[in-house]
Amino acid sequence: MTLSSSEATYPTRQLCEFLANLKLSDVPAPVVERTKDLYLDWIASAIAGKDAPAIRRLQEFAGAMGPGTGDAEVLVDRRRTSPYFAALINGASSHVVEQDDVHNGSVLHPAAVVFPPVLAAAQAEGRSGRDVLLASIAGYEAGIRIGEFMGRSHYRVFHTTGTVGTLAAAAAVAKLFGLDAEGINQALGTAGTQAAGLWEFLRDAADSKQLHTAKAAADGLQSAWLARAGFTGARRILEGAQGMAAGMSSDANPAALTDGLGTRWATAETSFKYFASCRHTHPAADALAALVRRDGIAAEQIAKVTAHVHQGAIDVLGPVVNPTTIHQAKFSMGTVLGLVAVHAHAGLGEFETQALQDARVAAFRDKVEMVLDEEINAAYPRQWIGRVTVHTTDGRTLEARVDVPKGDPDNTLSRPELEAKAIQLGAFRHGASEAEMRAIIARTWRLDAEADVRNWLPAAR
Amino acid sequence: MTLSSSEATYPTRQLCEFLANLKLSDVPAPVVERTKDLYLDWIASAIAGKDAPAIRRLQEFAGAMGPGTGDAEVLVDRRRTSPYFAALINGASSHVVEQDDVHNGSVLHPAAVVFPPVLAAAQAEGRSGRDVLLASIAGYEAGIRIGEFMGRSHYRVFHTTGTVGTLAAAAAVAKLFGLDAEGINQALGTAGTQAAGLWEFLRDAADSKQLHTAKAAADGLQSAWLARAGFTGARRILEGAQGMAAGMSSDANPAALTDGLGTRWATAETSFKYFASCRHTHPAADALAALVRRDGIAAEQIAKVTAHVHQGAIDVLGPVVNPTTIHQAKFSMGTVLGLVAVHAHAGLGEFETQALQDARVAAFRDKVEMVLDEEINAAYPRQWIGRVTVHTTDGRTLEARVDVPKGDPDNTLSRPELEAKAIQLGAFRHGASEAEMRAIIARTWRLDAEADVRNWLPAAR
Repeated sequence: MTLSSSEATYPTRQLCEFLANLKLSDVPAPVVERTKDLYLDWIASAIAGKDAPAIRRLQEFAGAMGPGTGDAEVLVDRRRTSPYFAALINGASSHVVEQDDVHNGSVLHPAAVVFPPVLAAAQAEGRSGRDVLLASIAGYEAGIRIGEFMGRSHYRVFHTTGTVGTLAAAAAVAKLFGLDAEGINQALGTAGTQAAGLWEFLRDAADSKQLHTAKAAADGLQSAWLARAGFTGARRILEGAQGMAAGMSSDANPAALTDGLGTRWATAETSFKYFASCRHTHPAADALAALVRRDGIAAEQIAKVTAHVHQGAIDVLGPVVNPTTIHQAKFSMGTVLGLVAVHAHAGLGEFETQALQDARVAAFRDKVEMVLDEEINAAYPRQWIGRVTVHTTDGRTLEARVDVPKGDPDNTLSRPELEAKAIQLGAFRHGASEAEMRAIIARTWRLDAEADVRNWLPAAR
Repeated sequence: MTLSSSEATYPTRQLCEFLANLKLSDVPAPVVERTKDLYLDWIASAIAGKDAPAIRRLQEFAGAMGPGTGDAEVLVDRRRTSPYFAALINGASSHVVEQDDVHNGSVLHPAAVVFPPVLAAAQAEGRSGRDVLLASIAGYEAGIRIGEFMGRSHYRVFHTTGTVGTLAAAAAVAKLFGLDAEGINQALGTAGTQAAGLWEFLRDAADSKQLHTAKAAADGLQSAWLARAGFTGARRILEGAQGMAAGMSSDANPAALTDGLGTRWATAETSFKYFASCRHTHPAADALAALVRRDGIAAEQIAKVTAHVHQGAIDVLGPVVNPTTIHQAKFSMGTVLGLVAVHAHAGLGEFETQALQDARVAAFRDKVEMVLDEEINAAYPRQWIGRVTVHTTDGRTLEARVDVPKGDPDNTLSRPELEAKAIQLGAFRHGASEAEMRAIIARTWRLDAEADVRNWLPAAR
């Protein structure tokens, strides 16, 4: 089937035309370098998911259903399998320690859904580092715009990284496969009709969040694979009368799908996580950390903290009152602010040893309230402003505000900071030794020189 | 984690308690016998999907991603694989010729999403025919009630068989695995957060409809497998504040989830398809067939047909104006009525040889219009009333109405009719010879005596 030129003017198709024509030489060098930063940050996050119970269950499932051979690597155990199951497990493990990247405007975690299927498909087909970089940029550019298109109403009930992530993964792998605009469009159609992921799991501290990234990565890969083989999907899957926006959004914005294509590099707008918690806690955590440093306040001196937040923070964090698991604690504003106040940081280590165990953190939790702030809410999601009001036990009222949280593009992590974070993530569950992480770091910085990524990782121990 | 008794009163949990406690001896014998009817009708539909291009693509995908060994059979080629991939392919092939069953009130096609994962899991684990029957009844009872719960608003954009089908499959396999109420609840949570399927593909005659049943079957099986292994999901995935109804329905009815549990057997309310087209065309097709027979009208004598329909028919069939594929023609009211008027039936054979090729059918298509009928719409989906008004070329106006279309529970197919349909489906693409189909028929009628379904099917040729 062919499309007449008049039919080819819908926004999804314009996005597909851009993706099909995209060359790595079109992408500004700083964006390519930032993509390497994102890739390193991702691979370290994926390795840190080792031994988490939900990841083990998915490894067992893949072992029972899939082949024990193939060229695609599972990062947590370095086994090889088919690209579908590698994408599934790596997609899950990327998201479990809540250290993977986030794009503010789309509220999408792109790394967890883009890199796993790209690396898996590239390993399965013996592709180059440049292919990986180009496909990943295509996935970021598509996924972020589709997330912005779906709007804030979508995010109230749906985990955008699960739903939109399926299309981001499909776009990335379709680009890796060299599909034309029609092929990418078909892949998005097949991906979009599989797009799923609900926030309801938050109330039960259930394992669904990692399942969402797992399925987005694997189903997106499958969609591109099927599209290449001629399996068809809906072309207007996003904006059509019975498409994703019609079913799952009340404020979709078609203009977002083509916003700044070729001039605005959404990939480089992505933020790195500094705290090991849900991103919605970060602005307030940053503001409280600044206040504690500036005013020299100890946790015991704090009687009450008001975190001024956007509505999305209330939607996602509100259901979590008394966390019972470490993962759930990452969605508890009280716990995150308690770790910052008591332990000066809410990193991986603090969550592992203090979030549930330290009575001072638990006591601090009850001192924290979230209130909707109209200014912050209006700026969101483009800008994630942090503001806290602290009432001290001796009657003072202190305020702090951070307009650009640590990790945002305008306050990003340097390469030494990223390297240190990666080494820490590798060490977290002994997923990779420091020497292995240093080898991965060195290879990442020269990823564009890699001819074949099948043996890209250090040899399995 | 355990639930206090007060927490266990939400509707999803009550449904899970019923499913966990269900025994085959609790099910009235006619319902068990009807389940065998449904099973035969399903297996014949699944075999008839052989060689459809979309099914071939899924077979290739499974071959590339999955193992070549296992005990679960793929019905279209009789190969063995893991239960995940068998459920995937059998789920797809069940739905491609549009001859599989439908439940009116839920607008769900249960067979295509319940039997494939049940048979695949039962073969993988060497279970009995009674286990298959009980698990399938559990899947029907759950899926139909969940479809009714999601309501008509859901069906306007979402293909209920894709979304709700994922939970029906999960409930069925969870029952096969013998999970308790908590385990079934976890399986539903994991299934519901993966529930997807949009109608947008209809405009492009794309392959998504079979993908929906494929994914529902496979993801439902995966959800039950993961739940058995301890992977958790949201307990209130249906009625919770960020659950399926919150995201994908505006008229959800929680009372439907527990309606008549143990007294109303939804399984036996399921209709068999008499025409090989979308079920929404059947009431009008039945009415036109009755009119043609009653008044002895030939196609050439008909100037215009008005099909009086419910809104769901307009939503699903409305986008299909000029069908370009046989599958799309099954969603074209004009084509279906054209086949009835010109060829006296719209069965598999008529679609294959006449739906697109016969100029008289194409000409007839333009004489057909659908109009919303308030009485029919109010009765739907509990009752699918057919009514047509025919204007003849010599100026007469004729009317016919069918209150219970052929195949409905109150006008069901007899076992001889089901056997004839099954043999015809087997012959359709030479999927199974008449002798093979007769062997399958005989074994189906004594399915409850089968000790191990691994070698239930006639030996592969």
